Amino acid sequence: MTERRLDGRVERGNQTRRLVLQRTVQVGSTEGLEALSLGRLATELKLSKSGVFALFGSKEELQLATIRAASKIYVDNVVRPALAHPPGLRRIWELSESWIRYSSERVFPGGCFFQKVSAEYSSRVGPVPDAIRSADSGWRGFIRQTIVEAQDAGDLTSDRTAEQLTFELTAFWESSNTQSVLMDSEAPYVQARTAVRALLRAASTMEADFLREPVLSRSAGSR
Amino acid sequence: MTERRLDGRVERGNQTRRLVLQRTVQVGSTEGLEALSLGRLATELKLSKSGVFALFGSKEELQLATIRAASKIYVDNVVRPALAHPPGLRRIWELSESWIRYSSERVFPGGCFFQKVSAEYSSRVGPVPDAIRSADSGWRGFIRQTIVEAQDAGDLTSDRTAEQLTFELTAFWESSNTQSVLMDSEAPYVQARTAVRALLRAASTMEADFLREPVLSRSAGSR
Repeated sequence: MTERRLDGRVERGNQTRRLVLQRTVQVGSTEGLEALSLGRLATELKLSKSGVFALFGSKEELQLATIRAASKIYVDNVVRPALAHPPGLRRIWELSESWIRYSSERVFPGGCFFQKVSAEYSSRVGPVPDAIRSADSGWRGFIRQTIVEAQDAGDLTSDRTAEQLTFELTAFWESSNTQSVLMDSEAPYVQARTAVRALLRAASTMEADFLREPVLSRSAGSR
Repeated sequence: MTERRLDGRVERGNQTRRLVLQRTVQVGSTEGLEALSLGRLATELKLSKSGVFALFGSKEELQLATIRAASKIYVDNVVRPALAHPPGLRRIWELSESWIRYSSERVFPGGCFFQKVSAEYSSRVGPVPDAIRSADSGWRGFIRQTIVEAQDAGDLTSDRTAEQLTFELTAFWESSNTQSVLMDSEAPYVQARTAVRALLRAASTMEADFLREPVLSRSAGSR
């Protein structure tokens, strides 16, 4: 085989891989990773089953590759936009905004991919749940680091530890995703933003414009 | 058939029903409701498949009966203990304590049954997701009502609406369950209690002993 023909085959393989993973991150977010099967994907994408098998080898390899592909999409949509802002309170707020946008715009059709598959595998052991736990730990580590940097910048009081703030922020984000997908409603995102603003106002040493509650978001006298 | 023999058959049917549902709420909390099949249950419980089929009729009926059985367990473990306290701030706190106990003691082996099956069916339509949505709405309505009663008793400021407080409390409870099951850790429950205490202190008009942070729960200087 000439080098050019080999290159062509590798390139076609990579294209097929991308095509398959584009589909599996979607299925994963709506039906979970157990719903993935090489045969089903081959049929849906009109590929040969042996071709898909040659690229991924096994259902488990396909599940792991799907988690890696979803992580990349997550980083591009949630982490990278926040890193465009300098460390400090503002970056925490922008991280919150990008998370809520990521969930509400349904970057994955079933809402947050990682929440879906965490619930699916939470009680299980093996390479797939290990990869999910590892992604979760990495993500929480990033939030904690973002908070520690804001503490170091003098933007936060010492009332709450970085660990505690991480817990509270992710609780609001994740609940807005769960409720929005389950009830097909935008209201949970409004509640999440209100909760994050109140939390960051209580935890910060400064008054920040972006943490002020929009005047029209609450009707007077409602409870 | 004499009445006595009929009574005996009905009673045996009820016993088998209870036996099956005891098992299905457990499987539901760890593997989800799609994992239930009449054949598998018959094998696991050493019953005849036709007997299980006669009692439930279809997988969907079994799933719906499982949700009803789980609701009863949920009410007994979470709602009833809170109702033992008079309406007001204290009842909200006790509701929080009973929720955290319900999750941490693994009343269902996979953690909160409803969180598991909500994630499983969140993107779907049909009688099973409808029953899950209905249970979720009923539960949130109960929390909201509990908060409105505390507002009426003068225990809460008007800073947060009952809707908003419901969102924030359930976010802390649910995140502690998710993180505890996924990471096999008790730490998320400590974080949830800290978060709920801070939230209720900020929202309440009174100083309450039960909302004071235990002195030993934070190490000095940690962040």
